[in-house]
Amino acid sequence: MSLNQISIALLIAASSLPAFAQTKTIAERLGYPPDSKLLIIHADDLAVAHSEDAASFDVLDKHAATSASIMVPCPWLTEVAAYAKDHPDADLGLHLTLTAEWKSYRWGPVESKDRVPTLLDPSGNLWPDVEPAVRNIKPDEAEREIRAQIARAESMGIHPTHLDSHMGTLFAKPELFAVYVKVAHEYKLPFLAVRGPQAPAALLSMLSPSDIVLDSLVMADPSINSANWKNFYTTAIQNLKPGVTEIIVHLGHDDAELQAVTIDHPDYGAAWRQRDYDAVTSPEFKQALEQNHIILIHWKDLKKLLQ
Amino acid sequence: MSLNQISIALLIAASSLPAFAQTKTIAERLGYPPDSKLLIIHADDLAVAHSEDAASFDVLDKHAATSASIMVPCPWLTEVAAYAKDHPDADLGLHLTLTAEWKSYRWGPVESKDRVPTLLDPSGNLWPDVEPAVRNIKPDEAEREIRAQIARAESMGIHPTHLDSHMGTLFAKPELFAVYVKVAHEYKLPFLAVRGPQAPAALLSMLSPSDIVLDSLVMADPSINSANWKNFYTTAIQNLKPGVTEIIVHLGHDDAELQAVTIDHPDYGAAWRQRDYDAVTSPEFKQALEQNHIILIHWKDLKKLLQ
Repeated sequence: MSLNQISIALLIAASSLPAFAQTKTIAERLGYPPDSKLLIIHADDLAVAHSEDAASFDVLDKHAATSASIMVPCPWLTEVAAYAKDHPDADLGLHLTLTAEWKSYRWGPVESKDRVPTLLDPSGNLWPDVEPAVRNIKPDEAEREIRAQIARAESMGIHPTHLDSHMGTLFAKPELFAVYVKVAHEYKLPFLAVRGPQAPAALLSMLSPSDIVLDSLVMADPSINSANWKNFYTTAIQNLKPGVTEIIVHLGHDDAELQAVTIDHPDYGAAWRQRDYDAVTSPEFKQALEQNHIILIHWKDLKKLLQ
Repeated sequence: MSLNQISIALLIAASSLPAFAQTKTIAERLGYPPDSKLLIIHADDLAVAHSEDAASFDVLDKHAATSASIMVPCPWLTEVAAYAKDHPDADLGLHLTLTAEWKSYRWGPVESKDRVPTLLDPSGNLWPDVEPAVRNIKPDEAEREIRAQIARAESMGIHPTHLDSHMGTLFAKPELFAVYVKVAHEYKLPFLAVRGPQAPAALLSMLSPSDIVLDSLVMADPSINSANWKNFYTTAIQNLKPGVTEIIVHLGHDDAELQAVTIDHPDYGAAWRQRDYDAVTSPEFKQALEQNHIILIHWKDLKKLLQ
């Protein structure tokens, strides 16, 4: 299991922008001073479990997160579709999903299985980890599946504001990143890509001048002591630099369902997700945003820049 | 939605046995006096939700239910497979599943979707109710799917003791019942069929002389007042007649997960399943079994009679 691989994988998605960079900053293009600190507070993994949905909907309703993304192959998609219908302004993207990482609770692809055989582990579910997924998946089958995920979301009335990648699988190999960028371009959707010092030229070369690349990403990792959770986030907010940052959180309630979903995996487990919920809804978090003059934005704001 | 259709559908599965009936009663064949009251206490719907699994495992461990059956296409199958591995004596069959009846929580087939297109509703999940399932499903695709469900269970180390049908879909049309009987015969598995006064000759003619047919079935239905739940079961036990009866229960905890799974559907909902759990684990239930000299049996006992 390596949900924590996402932080490494994301860093290779893009580095400092090459010569074709926009001359105006994203802040300016959105009507803010050029050196503004813009922040997306993003809840991952909607539809994976009811506990995850309930906690995420609550945080979105409180405007304590600005955006979220949905795992279309997961069992609770219909619950999220109902929320989307009732909250047409909610900023919901698709967390394109090519893995099913939990021990007792699994899911398969949206596509017909015989059209995406390399996406399946021996049990007929999606691969349980990034490494076997990347080793086995043929890019054309990944493309077929992510197109099917977008089509299913659309058919259920979900109109995504952006795309990103569950566990970073689509960032983990140039051929998969190429599919991700190709499909995002075709749908005119912004997609998660972040500057980083180690971005391979092969990935960078796939971006177009109009693509929006985030400046930094913040996500809790297993090195953080649970007693220090809120402090991790408030410190991150204090240290934000001008540009666009996304804080990725995983929200849930530490209840029987989520404990069973995440069994034997404390990293990104039920208590972890409860800590994330407690942190983003805390007065300290809100105060840190205010004191550091953080401007909260949504993916749909970035989407407008593409039109 | 019509989980309650199961009681009607089951009644048409078989009526009083025709001339080819075994001369010895099942009780005698199992080594009991001919007029014994044999009872299977059967938990349906394993794998549908963690709450369902946890409650069912607890009741099986307490020997308050003797048997259970598993919904192979459902998300929590791996949790049940782990239980089966840890409890090789557990009496677990397959609750062959051609419907996905809940509002916010859905599942698709085990088979590749383009090999079973008539099993899918417009959202790509299994049909939400028996009526559209029976109207749309081609029998050869139903056969393909139930074979895939058996194969997946076997591949995960689940060796089923019997077969039955979720929501009675396979009892609702002769062509589907024929598939059910054909596959059960091929795997040499006993399958749920119950004598009833209205059994059509078309269904009866599909049974072979060696098939085991239960004498009666008891299942709570929406007409029962929730305050009268335990009394419904103890009265049913007092009224048991000689022969083989199955009491079907739906076990779960009335928690956030199961409330969300069964949202907007109090019949067979979370509180209902908690009431079933409370009833079968109650001292009154146990006392009724003892006072009425009920002999608890398992499907695996019946399976041995086929060999």
